[in-house]
Amino acid sequence: MQNSSVDHSDRSVVDRTLKIFGCFNVRNTALTVSEISRSSGLPVATTYRLVSKLLSWGALERAAGNKYSIGLRLWEVASLAPRHSMSRTAALPHMLELQKETNSSVFLSAREEGDGIWLESFWGDGVPYDGSCIVGNRFPLYASASGQVLLAHADPAVQGELYSRGTRAVTGRTVAGSLPLRKLVNDVKRRGYAVDDCEPCDDLSGVAAPIHGGCGSVVACVALCGSSADGSPHQRVKPLLATARRISRELAKLQGARPPSQRRGLDHRGS
Amino acid sequence: MQNSSVDHSDRSVVDRTLKIFGCFNVRNTALTVSEISRSSGLPVATTYRLVSKLLSWGALERAAGNKYSIGLRLWEVASLAPRHSMSRTAALPHMLELQKETNSSVFLSAREEGDGIWLESFWGDGVPYDGSCIVGNRFPLYASASGQVLLAHADPAVQGELYSRGTRAVTGRTVAGSLPLRKLVNDVKRRGYAVDDCEPCDDLSGVAAPIHGGCGSVVACVALCGSSADGSPHQRVKPLLATARRISRELAKLQGARPPSQRRGLDHRGS
Repeated sequence: MQNSSVDHSDRSVVDRTLKIFGCFNVRNTALTVSEISRSSGLPVATTYRLVSKLLSWGALERAAGNKYSIGLRLWEVASLAPRHSMSRTAALPHMLELQKETNSSVFLSAREEGDGIWLESFWGDGVPYDGSCIVGNRFPLYASASGQVLLAHADPAVQGELYSRGTRAVTGRTVAGSLPLRKLVNDVKRRGYAVDDCEPCDDLSGVAAPIHGGCGSVVACVALCGSSADGSPHQRVKPLLATARRISRELAKLQGARPPSQRRGLDHRGS
Repeated sequence: MQNSSVDHSDRSVVDRTLKIFGCFNVRNTALTVSEISRSSGLPVATTYRLVSKLLSWGALERAAGNKYSIGLRLWEVASLAPRHSMSRTAALPHMLELQKETNSSVFLSAREEGDGIWLESFWGDGVPYDGSCIVGNRFPLYASASGQVLLAHADPAVQGELYSRGTRAVTGRTVAGSLPLRKLVNDVKRRGYAVDDCEPCDDLSGVAAPIHGGCGSVVACVALCGSSADGSPHQRVKPLLATARRISRELAKLQGARPPSQRRGLDHRGS
């Protein structure tokens, strides 16, 4: 057992390491040591030392212009996050089937604290791929059907924090004010799905439904989204709910079972 | 600037943190503190302290049975890894198109040191989704068309290491021995694609081609794989090479450009 001053130092180095990871986001995917130092508030020498260590393990990689970016080795470890990998494994075949059946776009998301995160996205013909809803990106919990489903099944503390913080208008249809949002969230929970009609974006409408894990709690959300010119989003409810049920059943099976066993050798089924 | 003993301690804490990440793999997605301690070789008290810190940041999450798993917050940061996110963004629409056109399975992979890693996979009707080629999993660089393409464009040091280490038979068709593998790799590089006919698996055959980044170097590999009953894998070469060219062009554009700009608010185009 180490003494408490070493404990403290350990914690602070872990903190610094995580601070370095936290400097990277979708707008800053490659940074110099000086930029990391400025963004993290760590001294340049400390930053340089930590960056070198993270580089040699593969948590960071060299990028053009003396910059560093997140390394594939870190992605490899992080892709084991069960909330990502299990939801994705359970959802993937059903999402692709729904996309094929409806020709609309299908999205998978989960909540992380007070935001949603896109876990997976497949674009249908009706919704051209435009680089939005980037996998790994965050989105607000109130301005889309996906967000509203995740919010409806969030802890009361997360809901309360959002109600007191208030919403920021995304379009003219964004639900504003604590009381209307509370009502909306209760409706979504009671009904079992959310509908947005041109709410997050003028020309798109969609529906979203919760995915239940093995223990019954909501762990993710699946959404079906298309051009608002293709009719009412309510027409999408039935196939979406059937898909959400299939994914929930698959997930319960996965969570009850051991992770997929390795094939002989490694994974060499593909080409 | 800190003194060298503190430098040394800093580095060792970063090492310990990364050691904890390294305990998780596809067979061990949820671990107790004792299991992490055993697997990392760190004392239980140190492990407990570091795990608590990683938990509070979201790099780890609680799982059932007093276990811990990789957290969604770490996945969020790691999904920024350009070798994953850029390749995927450039490849996704073209992979889906190829899958639709051929009804076969399409895979995206990259090399990490001496192994391949599956970055993305879409199953066609001819190849039922069976949980293999799990995104994030490693595979050997010699026993499949994807591996052979990645090996053909690897640094000579990586190739040399593999030639001297030797291959392990995956099926009766695995290329064995340094000399035949060298010849194969040279052929793949010269020809611009690799073919495997029931090599990684009895009932599947496929083709793989390199994806070039903006600077011309090979950064990833795309493969098209289907049932060997559906004819010779050579029939798949033409559509695959066209797709690889489209993805390479897209990637060069992305690497020359800034990352996709954020929409107003966050990403709220989806539902």
